Amino acid sequence: MKQKLNIVKIGGNVIDHPESLNTFLRDFVAIEGPKILVHGGGKLATEMANKMGVSQVMWQGRRITDKETLKIAVMVYAGWINKTIVAQLNALGTSALGVCGADLDLIIATKRQHPEIDFGFVGDIEPASINTKAIISFVTCNPQPATALVFSPITADLTGQLLNTNADTIASTLAVALSSHFNVQLNYCFEKAGVLEEISNEASVIKKMNLTLYRKMKQEQKISNGMIPKLDTSFEAIKSGVGGIYIGHYSNIYKMINQHEDAGTAIV
Amino acid sequence: MKQKLNIVKIGGNVIDHPESLNTFLRDFVAIEGPKILVHGGGKLATEMANKMGVSQVMWQGRRITDKETLKIAVMVYAGWINKTIVAQLNALGTSALGVCGADLDLIIATKRQHPEIDFGFVGDIEPASINTKAIISFVTCNPQPATALVFSPITADLTGQLLNTNADTIASTLAVALSSHFNVQLNYCFEKAGVLEEISNEASVIKKMNLTLYRKMKQEQKISNGMIPKLDTSFEAIKSGVGGIYIGHYSNIYKMINQHEDAGTAIV
Repeated sequence: MKQKLNIVKIGGNVIDHPESLNTFLRDFVAIEGPKILVHGGGKLATEMANKMGVSQVMWQGRRITDKETLKIAVMVYAGWINKTIVAQLNALGTSALGVCGADLDLIIATKRQHPEIDFGFVGDIEPASINTKAIISFVTCNPQPATALVFSPITADLTGQLLNTNADTIASTLAVALSSHFNVQLNYCFEKAGVLEEISNEASVIKKMNLTLYRKMKQEQKISNGMIPKLDTSFEAIKSGVGGIYIGHYSNIYKMINQHEDAGTAIV
Repeated sequence: MKQKLNIVKIGGNVIDHPESLNTFLRDFVAIEGPKILVHGGGKLATEMANKMGVSQVMWQGRRITDKETLKIAVMVYAGWINKTIVAQLNALGTSALGVCGADLDLIIATKRQHPEIDFGFVGDIEPASINTKAIISFVTCNPQPATALVFSPITADLTGQLLNTNADTIASTLAVALSSHFNVQLNYCFEKAGVLEEISNEASVIKKMNLTLYRKMKQEQKISNGMIPKLDTSFEAIKSGVGGIYIGHYSNIYKMINQHEDAGTAIV
């Protein structure tokens, strides 16, 4: 039987609130066995850009990563957020190592090509590139037992160009790549209680979501735009061998890990 | 016989010039055997502070690291500079992992205590805390052979508080801590050709510097203020078992590693 590996993704909301983050990290430390934390950005990058007078160019709701925006992303994600989390985890007694995709070529990406628009320094991951050997070594035995890896959403291409990369995609790509070695559970933590039947009703959490239900809800335009790529990727990941996927509130991480009935939304 | 380990410290000047940095990194990649790169800061942190309107408070020529300055230091050193170097090294074919002292508790520090002045979030290293086991594992065999470790000058204390830390001290403390396992050569690279007999004459490099000569020159006030802590620590490090120490220009790193006659200043 394969060993269990938990991959946990946290978004900006929990990162923006030091107390929530600390509570979350205490729960994360309590997770038994190998574990990986993937973190997103939060408001700090936008705040920094404003302070530095770097204007943010958007295209259909998506941010263009120009040279200065990339620098801010690397500083905030791979620097401040990553090392803040790592230092807290170590203080809480979990041996944690902060990395980005560029370290040891753990994740290689290529600069996004798009027929209409230049997204700038945005990376699309090469799934076959994941350095699973190094990751397995880190989270199981070397350099010390049960090292928690903490990934910031920065990667590099083969020329050494750093690239801004979607944290959800990093989490799901890692989950798929590691599922031949581990029984991987992927946990998306955010500020909602799960996938909601009615978007404005926090009590309407869908406990189990299968592909048929998802397609029906998507057709009825009941799934928010932000949730669609998360769910699309989740169903792909399940098909590719990931053992389980949960989407829920970051304060429920303990329930998600232990697959409680009210843990959020289980993708099945 | 112990295996050779090269520790190389680079300062701000080479970091501020992308072309010099790239040339330097090509030379660094060519170093055989296990190696560690410790980098300092450069002008970017000061530029960032200016852009963000964070005023820099100095005390007798030394910077006070307040909360905002710490954030900038972590972002610039552990984020942008560290990951830029790591991505370039991997692109050049050396497997590189970027870390700070907070990762895996590699280096634990305590907030500096001073009777007169609060230096803010500045860390003094606890030499006994160095996680030599993890470092040895990284640079020798795990997770893959001959991983080059790239240290940014950020550490944390036992409570998880990040701290700004002197890069020269990180380099020398690592050298001493690892010298019971390796034959360590410590190489300080900067923008001068070595320790100079006359400060304004680049041709007056002292090829071999022993403690007697150093004491004499210090008494005659021929040693610049910036060089004194580097040399004090170097003589301590030699006494503590470090195999060799060179101080020279970053373009001469090949000569320093190979202990050429005109490599800069050898501390003996």
